Amino acid sequence: MVIKMQAEALDAFMHEVFEQVAEDFAVEEVCPGEITVRLRVTHKHLRPGGTISGPSMFALADVSAYLMTLAMIGPEALAVTTNCAIDFMRKPAAGVDLIAKGRLLKLGKVLSVSDVMLYSEGMEEPVARASLTYAIPPRRGV
Amino acid sequence: MVIKMQAEALDAFMHEVFEQVAEDFAVEEVCPGEITVRLRVTHKHLRPGGTISGPSMFALADVSAYLMTLAMIGPEALAVTTNCAIDFMRKPAAGVDLIAKGRLLKLGKVLSVSDVMLYSEGMEEPVARASLTYAIPPRRGV
Amino acid sequence: MVIKMQAEALDAFMHEVFEQVAEDFAVEEVCPGEITVRLRVTHKHLRPGGTISGPSMFALADVSAYLMTLAMIGPEALAVTTNCAIDFMRKPAAGVDLIAKGRLLKLGKVLSVSDVMLYSEGMEEPVARASLTYAIPPRRGV
Amino acid sequence: MVIKMQAEALDAFMHEVFEQVAEDFAVEEVCPGEITVRLRVTHKHLRPGGTISGPSMFALADVSAYLMTLAMIGPEALAVTTNCAIDFMRKPAAGVDLIAKGRLLKLGKVLSVSDVMLYSEGMEEPVARASLTYAIPPRRGV
Repeated sequence: MVIKMQAEALDAFMHEVFEQVAEDFAVEEVCPGEITVRLRVTHKHLRPGGTISGPSMFALADVSAYLMTLAMIGPEALAVTTNCAIDFMRKPAAGVDLIAKGRLLKLGKVLSVSDVMLYSEGMEEPVARASLTYAIPPRRGV
Repeated sequence: MVIKMQAEALDAFMHEVFEQVAEDFAVEEVCPGEITVRLRVTHKHLRPGGTISGPSMFALADVSAYLMTLAMIGPEALAVTTNCAIDFMRKPAAGVDLIAKGRLLKLGKVLSVSDVMLYSEGMEEPVARASLTYAIPPRRGV
Repeated sequence: MVIKMQAEALDAFMHEVFEQVAEDFAVEEVCPGEITVRLRVTHKHLRPGGTISGPSMFALADVSAYLMTLAMIGPEALAVTTNCAIDFMRKPAAGVDLIAKGRLLKLGKVLSVSDVMLYSEGMEEPVARASLTYAIPPRRGV
Repeated sequence: MVIKMQAEALDAFMHEVFEQVAEDFAVEEVCPGEITVRLRVTHKHLRPGGTISGPSMFALADVSAYLMTLAMIGPEALAVTTNCAIDFMRKPAAGVDLIAKGRLLKLGKVLSVSDVMLYSEGMEEPVARASLTYAIPPRRGV
């Protein structure tokens, strides 16, 4: 698998198409079939008690799987999530960012399948786990 | 099944414990084992092209299942989502709110299971479908 | 939605392509976007204590969603399950068949999405709930 | 994490409580929080064309997550699957066994969460991926 978009290109693309939330996320690393994405946790992501909200965790898993797919197929704003299964396993630690580690399990012609583990930065045990399917729009020349 | 919290009580509880997002949601109706919740769609829920973001749809499904569980067990801020499977099936219509119709499928001692259908207001076909599991904290006197 | 295969045609198709297990299942009713399928519970479906095994419940949900899709698109042995999320909620009753009630939530060009509730015959509360996605092979003339 | 049941003990337990299917499975290896289980593929697991049936893949994922949980908590026939999300990604190779590699992601007091990758023996790319939740019965002395 050849990487078509590196971390900088993915960040730039995110700022272009998801301008509203692009500041929340930072692509830390892209390898063939793997990605690391940071959620810069701010007040808006929190719930009382300092824990990170479920929708914020979902958003991080979703954007990570999306960017990992784009890293492999190139900029396709039209790829859409069709399915996500997510397990919330532990309370995220207060005061630290959330780090997503994604793996691309399948890159087919019409579907990509990924799984993503979410960690409180510096912790060993995952706070959540997600698997996601993306529908890839028909590609020119494929 | 006896309803322990009606729509007004659920709205009030939401303002108390999820003050940051309570304005986004409105409980429309509560019946035994069923709930209808509205997402008041505003700019922050949108993606380019006017479509509603995946995390906003997840948030609506999640809050609906949570409030439906509370309607049956009473105010328990500590109930936590342990699992969600969500299918995104159609693009939400632009310019209308999103309506969640939830059903409580099981209310056990430690877990509740719900499913939720999401509709663009006034449309017949669902835009998304979710199933959610909540872990219920040990209850006094149970 | 027009039904392309009625119950008898679905049963016949099942005997043709899934000869090994076709005897286990009976299509009870087909309506536009809905199906009822019976699992004829025999010794091989049971676990100690008389409960029905998880794989047997999965198989019933899977075959129901598959046949419901075929009812709408016609005989396509090549449609394949891409995803299933299943919640096991109650212990099935001993000594009775399992009845699946399926609904087709989306029939797209490449994907169909269904949900299925499983009941012990004669019981009101579901024993399990599943959602399934099928990939539909490219169709001639579509 | 200390292993309470090694591969031989798990195999023996499986023969005791799942006598009907125990011959289909073999525990290959148990490490803290990890397990490898083989499905001995025979005629009954196949679909026309030589591919392995969905319920057989589900059964392998399910038994792997169950045995991995037991490896850590000891023999508890009463642990039950509450939820499974499974993605079918590739057609299994004909004529070879199916190998499950499971990881225990969380072992809580009432729930365990695992994920399992399924491989056709000797192949690098997974044919399926599953995540499973088990409800653990209250334990003596815990």
